[in-house]
Amino acid sequence: MAKQKLKVMMLGGLNEIGKNIAVIEYGDDIIVIDCGLAFPDEDMLGIDLVIPDITYLEKNADRVRAILLTHGHEDHIGALPYVLKTINPPVYGTRLTLGILESKLREHKLNDTAKLITVEAGSIVRCGVFTCEFIHVNHSIADACAIAVRTPVGIVLHTGDFKLDVSPIDGGMMDLTRLGEYGREGVLLLMCESTNVDRPGFTPSEKKVAPSLEHIFLKNADKRVVIATFSSNVHRVQQIVDASVKFGRKVAITGRSMLNIVGAAVELGYMKVPPNVLIDISEIGKYPYDMVTIVTTGSQGEPMSALYRMAFSDHSQVALTSNDIVVLSSQAIPGNELLVGRIINELYKRGINVYHDAHAVHVSGHACQEELKLMHNLIKPKFFMPIHGEYRHLMQHKELAEFMGMSAENIFVTGIGEVLELDESSCKRGASVPSGRVLIDGYGVGDVGNIVLRDRRHLSQDGLIVVVATVDVDEKVIVSGPDIISRGFVYVREAEELMEEVRSISNDVLTKALDNGITEWTQMKNGVKDALTKFLFQKTKRKPMILPVIMNI
Amino acid sequence: MAKQKLKVMMLGGLNEIGKNIAVIEYGDDIIVIDCGLAFPDEDMLGIDLVIPDITYLEKNADRVRAILLTHGHEDHIGALPYVLKTINPPVYGTRLTLGILESKLREHKLNDTAKLITVEAGSIVRCGVFTCEFIHVNHSIADACAIAVRTPVGIVLHTGDFKLDVSPIDGGMMDLTRLGEYGREGVLLLMCESTNVDRPGFTPSEKKVAPSLEHIFLKNADKRVVIATFSSNVHRVQQIVDASVKFGRKVAITGRSMLNIVGAAVELGYMKVPPNVLIDISEIGKYPYDMVTIVTTGSQGEPMSALYRMAFSDHSQVALTSNDIVVLSSQAIPGNELLVGRIINELYKRGINVYHDAHAVHVSGHACQEELKLMHNLIKPKFFMPIHGEYRHLMQHKELAEFMGMSAENIFVTGIGEVLELDESSCKRGASVPSGRVLIDGYGVGDVGNIVLRDRRHLSQDGLIVVVATVDVDEKVIVSGPDIISRGFVYVREAEELMEEVRSISNDVLTKALDNGITEWTQMKNGVKDALTKFLFQKTKRKPMILPVIMNI
Repeated sequence: MAKQKLKVMMLGGLNEIGKNIAVIEYGDDIIVIDCGLAFPDEDMLGIDLVIPDITYLEKNADRVRAILLTHGHEDHIGALPYVLKTINPPVYGTRLTLGILESKLREHKLNDTAKLITVEAGSIVRCGVFTCEFIHVNHSIADACAIAVRTPVGIVLHTGDFKLDVSPIDGGMMDLTRLGEYGREGVLLLMCESTNVDRPGFTPSEKKVAPSLEHIFLKNADKRVVIATFSSNVHRVQQIVDASVKFGRKVAITGRSMLNIVGAAVELGYMKVPPNVLIDISEIGKYPYDMVTIVTTGSQGEPMSALYRMAFSDHSQVALTSNDIVVLSSQAIPGNELLVGRIINELYKRGINVYHDAHAVHVSGHACQEELKLMHNLIKPKFFMPIHGEYRHLMQHKELAEFMGMSAENIFVTGIGEVLELDESSCKRGASVPSGRVLIDGYGVGDVGNIVLRDRRHLSQDGLIVVVATVDVDEKVIVSGPDIISRGFVYVREAEELMEEVRSISNDVLTKALDNGITEWTQMKNGVKDALTKFLFQKTKRKPMILPVIMNI
Repeated sequence: MAKQKLKVMMLGGLNEIGKNIAVIEYGDDIIVIDCGLAFPDEDMLGIDLVIPDITYLEKNADRVRAILLTHGHEDHIGALPYVLKTINPPVYGTRLTLGILESKLREHKLNDTAKLITVEAGSIVRCGVFTCEFIHVNHSIADACAIAVRTPVGIVLHTGDFKLDVSPIDGGMMDLTRLGEYGREGVLLLMCESTNVDRPGFTPSEKKVAPSLEHIFLKNADKRVVIATFSSNVHRVQQIVDASVKFGRKVAITGRSMLNIVGAAVELGYMKVPPNVLIDISEIGKYPYDMVTIVTTGSQGEPMSALYRMAFSDHSQVALTSNDIVVLSSQAIPGNELLVGRIINELYKRGINVYHDAHAVHVSGHACQEELKLMHNLIKPKFFMPIHGEYRHLMQHKELAEFMGMSAENIFVTGIGEVLELDESSCKRGASVPSGRVLIDGYGVGDVGNIVLRDRRHLSQDGLIVVVATVDVDEKVIVSGPDIISRGFVYVREAEELMEEVRSISNDVLTKALDNGITEWTQMKNGVKDALTKFLFQKTKRKPMILPVIMNI
């Protein structure tokens, strides 16, 4: 039998931020790397989360040997609680990654059925025909890995998300040696993340944050310090704890995900907190302001987050005053700038000083241009596929690879579902498999599609008008109504005349239709819809949704 | 008669970006400086524009002596087409400012009734008890002014929006001398803009853009160059024209506002274009790619803008290919980052190179920290009121003024509608006047308020369900229905069972209500609403709007 082709595709994470998921297939064996979620675009009204369409994996469920996780961020593990309901292969991840995943699975009552297998950097696992090694990298979450997959036609190296931190808080510098050994051996395909490809230079070390924090503590020695950061950045929280200890402060944690992750991190040994430092948030009243640090969620300005509730005086246990300062140890994710700005304004309005961007209290977790070049130089792959980025990032990453000496025809910028077919010496674009997005709204998985979203958008812009009438088709009369109900269109009490005109037009259309012996509901309804749409646009320049409901007796 | 107090207030432009409007009042005389609009927040669904609430001016219409305009940006003149319908005092502005205003007034058929009076930098106008001098400043639009108002109790200096440009394209450096003379004479109150107060240093000169543009033209000598920028930045467009001429290119303009403003600017002499350079957009096909520059609107990613339509292959006269490059000579206004990103991705996807942020093709039009300090140092006011900024900007501007030596009690961070009362030696917070925002939706001015917006938000999140039934209360029976119609809730064809349950629950509630002899419509409707809300939340974790319509026969 002729040797088969290796197939590589992304079912998410290309031309978008989030829902990262890679699929590697050879013969009867499929492995999946990561299975993340994305947050909805601003035009996906009412949607909570977005997960990848995994139809392809469901159809080939019996061939999926494993899901391998690079790290515990939502955009890499967040779809698993939904995906593991339809396919249930073993899931491999490091301790912290699986620790975070487990608490999610528990909420979805999947903790008993999921098959979680803990690995560590250096672990090698066999999944069908593939041999996969987890390789330590630095990132804004502990216990992150790249994954090297040995396949029958060559080595595929998936970087996960990474940065190079030459002075990490814990866990050591990323394993350049092991990566370099794979490079020396020869890598067939590099799949490398692209998040920061538009930023020159090197991302600073996480340790850069400590002096900034200490400077803030020093300058605000008489104040309570409230610090918001990403809950998953345990090294950041570690540094906040360290600075607090140095300045004789107790540390209280608030926000559900912060409590969950810090709890798991302490328990699993990823954070070291001296005894008598952590206090419960309910105890902060027992200590003077200058002896307390509060670590909180909400650094993205999320409404309902602990910081948001503090800013708007709606937190049950923390009341902020000008005796507090707030530090945003984070950067606004594109799209969240206004939300974050709203919190900052609200805090300033209440006399609370805010430290953010300008004060160097955050560093990125992703590789900038020089680190990406370092990765390309270490791995020197035959073929390259930029992943994890919008189209512009992927294209800029392609340029970077060409700058590093690769020829353009060996670089493959693909879309989700597009298959690359490889053997030892070639890489070609193959057919596509089903791919896309599945919207989660409440308990609904995929039951909100384009039609529902289109209606929500329509309703959100100009509201709606419901026209209800009961008619007797045989007698050709309106028995009751037409009644007009509107929502989100215009304040009705101040528009009685307009609504009366709407009623009268509806009445005319229906009467005429009945007189003419029209019995087709659709025709009657469309008559009302057209007449009102035209009238209202001319009168108000708005196009509310018109919903005629006509009942026969 | 004892001397009166001078009253100063902002009716917009404090704790917000946009709708700038200042009011200065003494005895019987009121003058207004600027009258701008704001763009809706993302939670103002369906709203087109926001203008200030000018109830206070309407009530005192006979005392309003003048509206003075600092420059022609939307956030300084955009509310006039609405405001001049209720009050109609003389409007003073420079030529370009009034040129832009006039085309707006024409659209609103106000050009015959409006009283526009052209001034120039150095002009002094008397408005009742006030003497007002227009003083030349630099900004991202030509013909911008600060305004010095001589009042019976002292001088008020309103900076408008400004930057210091030591090498401006046209019109000269801002008039530091005249400002300094007022400072030497003694200024009672400085009202200074705060937009860039969080940026250190000096804003670069507009002239910095030219070398970047030329570099891009040089590197892309074989391509057509499409450049998007703010239509009102005539100096930017001038530089684009100059660079094009230098490289032997024709220039075509597209986008309504770009055509309007460039037309006005050329006509009024604010732009100098050599003959045979401007071509109509319909003529671009007659020239080879490397001989054409297209200047377009859409630098903020606005859907429907010319650039957006080009990116999505929907522009009737420009079809982009990889023979084009696109330059965004602009910066995304906070909140527009995603829209701009969408265009960039789309262009990259189509093989079109995009130059933006990183390529120094834009400079700001607002004063950074050092320029603000320069203004404070020149004016050395007795009292200071930071204006034009969100709360954090105003507070940072207060800090800056303190750094410059002012004492905190002489600095007044106020909110819209809050009145400052001044005499020669004191400034105190007085009472408040009505203020706020008026929402424009289509032809409607102020007819969309909180209730309508709340309904739009509700509808946008989970859609709605209409329950319609015709009953005969006397006979205690349902005559027709209940019928269930839903929009924006769930894709009905895939949720027939759910909708049948909804129908059945509605039927039960109504039947029971009729059996119990309930004739109160509200009670019957609330019964349906409560039962369905509970059922659907439990079943779907969503809360659609429930609209029960019950008709009696």
